[in-house]
Amino acid sequence: MKLHGYFRSSAAFRVRIALNLKGVEVEHRSHHLRKGEQRAVGYLALNPQGLVPTLEFEPGGVLTQSLAIIEWLDETHPQAPLLPSDPLARARVRAFALAISCDIHPVQNLKVLNRLRSLGVEEDAVADWAAWVNREGLEACEVMLRDQPGPFCFGSAPSLADICLVPQLSNARRFKVDVGRFPRLLMAEAAAMALPAFADAVPDQQHDRE
Amino acid sequence: MKLHGYFRSSAAFRVRIALNLKGVEVEHRSHHLRKGEQRAVGYLALNPQGLVPTLEFEPGGVLTQSLAIIEWLDETHPQAPLLPSDPLARARVRAFALAISCDIHPVQNLKVLNRLRSLGVEEDAVADWAAWVNREGLEACEVMLRDQPGPFCFGSAPSLADICLVPQLSNARRFKVDVGRFPRLLMAEAAAMALPAFADAVPDQQHDRE
Repeated sequence: MKLHGYFRSSAAFRVRIALNLKGVEVEHRSHHLRKGEQRAVGYLALNPQGLVPTLEFEPGGVLTQSLAIIEWLDETHPQAPLLPSDPLARARVRAFALAISCDIHPVQNLKVLNRLRSLGVEEDAVADWAAWVNREGLEACEVMLRDQPGPFCFGSAPSLADICLVPQLSNARRFKVDVGRFPRLLMAEAAAMALPAFADAVPDQQHDRE
Repeated sequence: MKLHGYFRSSAAFRVRIALNLKGVEVEHRSHHLRKGEQRAVGYLALNPQGLVPTLEFEPGGVLTQSLAIIEWLDETHPQAPLLPSDPLARARVRAFALAISCDIHPVQNLKVLNRLRSLGVEEDAVADWAAWVNREGLEACEVMLRDQPGPFCFGSAPSLADICLVPQLSNARRFKVDVGRFPRLLMAEAAAMALPAFADAVPDQQHDRE
């Protein structure tokens, strides 16, 4: 299996964590997002959105979208589960993951920030935009965990929620958000980062880091 | 059960379709997004993101995020299924739904467009932004269905993919995107709109329409 990704992509980071948690080894193919390699014709044939990650497996199997890939991994490799078994509890974990994956990450990705620049928005205001999206989004995430037992987002084991949270907190710091305002999120991050599955997946540990 | 929504919200529109497909009746509560009613303290206690939809049920059950609500509905009301049973096929349907729900919808919602206005971006450029996000996103969606049998997005029955597609095409038209460029998407939309579950869920059929 090949994972097409990029060291700094939060969405590829999520899939790296999930693969590690499931003990699935893959070959990594890097696509340099700032150089636009994800828009190459050969890659677009795999992923028409021109985004990373893409999971490719023989013969001819291709999956895109980090959350779809992770749910597929969880369904095909049931140990250890990334979602609770109770439907209501599953829905809460998914809602938290989607609050990050829909409402934070795509609104602050490279494509959107570059589009702002093309409209003549100054670099300071672009940085403010990215910080605003992360700050508002993570504030809501902090409240969503208010009644959830720790140390992970939802209880005593990592889930899809932690898989989405850890990369997003890393983005938030890069955009200079004061993450100290989110003690419950930081508790979950600390529990996650104590596991090699998370620690080995961070951007700085990847072969294509800069 | 109460569905907190707004007639024009694409995310609430998705949940209305899913509830109709499952034959689940709910009470509708409208929150006027342009008047900011989704930021009222009482509503934020239900949905810390200040977004619609929220599904509320007695006693004390609350679910947020349209895709999490729809997957919960599908798990608790298995007939008729909104996802295929094969894991790979499920992943492809989810990837299509996420390509819309993560990469199109949140980048063109009211909050983002208002933020652009607050940066001094002119109204024409705001409209161009919304059209750009829809056009690029739906172009990729059209390619994602290239090898899929119709008439729906994925075969002979509506799925989570159609539930996300129909509201997004409605947005694309509102933002003056030439949807005639997406014949495969239009085929799926026509099949869906022939079903009362979809036709009854459109914004113009809601009690809070303007």
